[in-house]
Amino acid sequence: MSQDQNIFVGGLVATTPRHIITADGLPITSFRLAASTQRFDRGSGKWVEETNWYTITAFKQLAINTSASVGKGDRVVVAGKLRVRDWDNGERAGTSVEIEAEMLGHDYSWGTGVFTRTTLVREVSDPEPTETASTELEPDLIELG
Amino acid sequence: MSQDQNIFVGGLVATTPRHIITADGLPITSFRLAASTQRFDRGSGKWVEETNWYTITAFKQLAINTSASVGKGDRVVVAGKLRVRDWDNGERAGTSVEIEAEMLGHDYSWGTGVFTRTTLVREVSDPEPTETASTELEPDLIELG
Amino acid sequence: MSQDQNIFVGGLVATTPRHIITADGLPITSFRLAASTQRFDRGSGKWVEETNWYTITAFKQLAINTSASVGKGDRVVVAGKLRVRDWDNGERAGTSVEIEAEMLGHDYSWGTGVFTRTTLVREVSDPEPTETASTELEPDLIELG
Amino acid sequence: MSQDQNIFVGGLVATTPRHIITADGLPITSFRLAASTQRFDRGSGKWVEETNWYTITAFKQLAINTSASVGKGDRVVVAGKLRVRDWDNGERAGTSVEIEAEMLGHDYSWGTGVFTRTTLVREVSDPEPTETASTELEPDLIELG
Repeated sequence: MSQDQNIFVGGLVATTPRHIITADGLPITSFRLAASTQRFDRGSGKWVEETNWYTITAFKQLAINTSASVGKGDRVVVAGKLRVRDWDNGERAGTSVEIEAEMLGHDYSWGTGVFTRTTLVREVSDPEPTETASTELEPDLIELG
Repeated sequence: MSQDQNIFVGGLVATTPRHIITADGLPITSFRLAASTQRFDRGSGKWVEETNWYTITAFKQLAINTSASVGKGDRVVVAGKLRVRDWDNGERAGTSVEIEAEMLGHDYSWGTGVFTRTTLVREVSDPEPTETASTELEPDLIELG
Repeated sequence: MSQDQNIFVGGLVATTPRHIITADGLPITSFRLAASTQRFDRGSGKWVEETNWYTITAFKQLAINTSASVGKGDRVVVAGKLRVRDWDNGERAGTSVEIEAEMLGHDYSWGTGVFTRTTLVREVSDPEPTETASTELEPDLIELG
Repeated sequence: MSQDQNIFVGGLVATTPRHIITADGLPITSFRLAASTQRFDRGSGKWVEETNWYTITAFKQLAINTSASVGKGDRVVVAGKLRVRDWDNGERAGTSVEIEAEMLGHDYSWGTGVFTRTTLVREVSDPEPTETASTELEPDLIELG
């Protein structure tokens, strides 16, 4: 049994996105995201604000475009797969909470944007068979309901 | 019993976003979104591509910024509440599938963007108590994990 | 570009689930689900309750077990893929909103349940490669964090 | 800015659910959930199975019914709010990943169930105004589409 544990969050980019290219030529961009939530505290009977912290990671074309577009302090929306991992480097151990981004953009609740399209066909960041055969709709031919 | 039926989708903006301001002064922006999915067809034993059509509606600051930023043919990501409504205008009847957007941006899988922040504190588009008391994190003061 | 448009909803089973087996031997169970939401009506300034209607469809083992377990009037939770389809049978036309269920169970917010496990390894209802290689965790061997 | 970071996951109940009632009379049930996912490993070029671990917490009626219905080794589906928390007890520090359940049931992909309804109106586990005014639909009066 397995499933994609998809999640979407909006939040504040809390670190300058770090862009690397691996020895194999894979572009990767990552940053920390602070996503605020509110929770009803049963003890005090009040709403309290809390923050979930995520490490956001993007690959390939999304990594390149994110690196060119997103900076620290920006407000973004991210959709992707949640990964919770325990790690142990011998000296210390912990848990990391990561979202492997599939879609990512600025949140226009907070500002305006100018978009420049760089790809006609999406270079999929994840080699699932469900994404390889996709074709793009031709906007001018779309019949509206 | 009630719940928010939250959904997020990525897709192609298929109509020029229409921006209006109601008599009460409420800004509203709406457009049609074509969101492709793939489905395994049990009859043919093949993956087929299908498209879900949504009417996206944004209010207030998000409506203003979306109108200023998003055009027909763009690739966007939208998070919001799904509403399925049966309608009947006497002559015809049908079902509309609408997403009331809470977050919306261009999808950087498809291009790059330049973002200009217009608000320091989000003007909430939905008057839920869970959103009114929010304060913004100060990026420079954020302690990273 | 394509993505799974995953959704989860809780609601009331509004029709007696209908169970069929196709000529090819595929078990299918379907029913209508009424899922209530609340919406802030900007005109009246009040919260109003509305209902989203979905057709829920399950296949294979999930279809068999759902048919054996779920009745009209029950409260259930469903996770699956959203499909919005326009149809036209020559005489009439309309839009159907369907969820192809991947997981489905009673919602214990509303009652208690007695569960009888019928499968040791999940018979996947969708032949995605991401689900075929799965192995089941051995509960007694799980190391807890 | 704040939002509910809703998530739904299916998985294996890895610990016997622990049921307590606080001094204030609040019922709480919690357990650990192992949720398998598959990830494409770019290094090896293969799909690998990984497991996300969550602490599931239910309150009030859902806590009572979950405690009466769910055991270690069961397969369940959970919808709720994700909370990522850093903790530090002086001696050790870490990160916990918790889902505050809003809906929870057995997953009928894996077995059958017998459901006994205990409440006519849902006792909401979270005092949001969006949930207090709800009324239940009368199944027999529902008009089907």
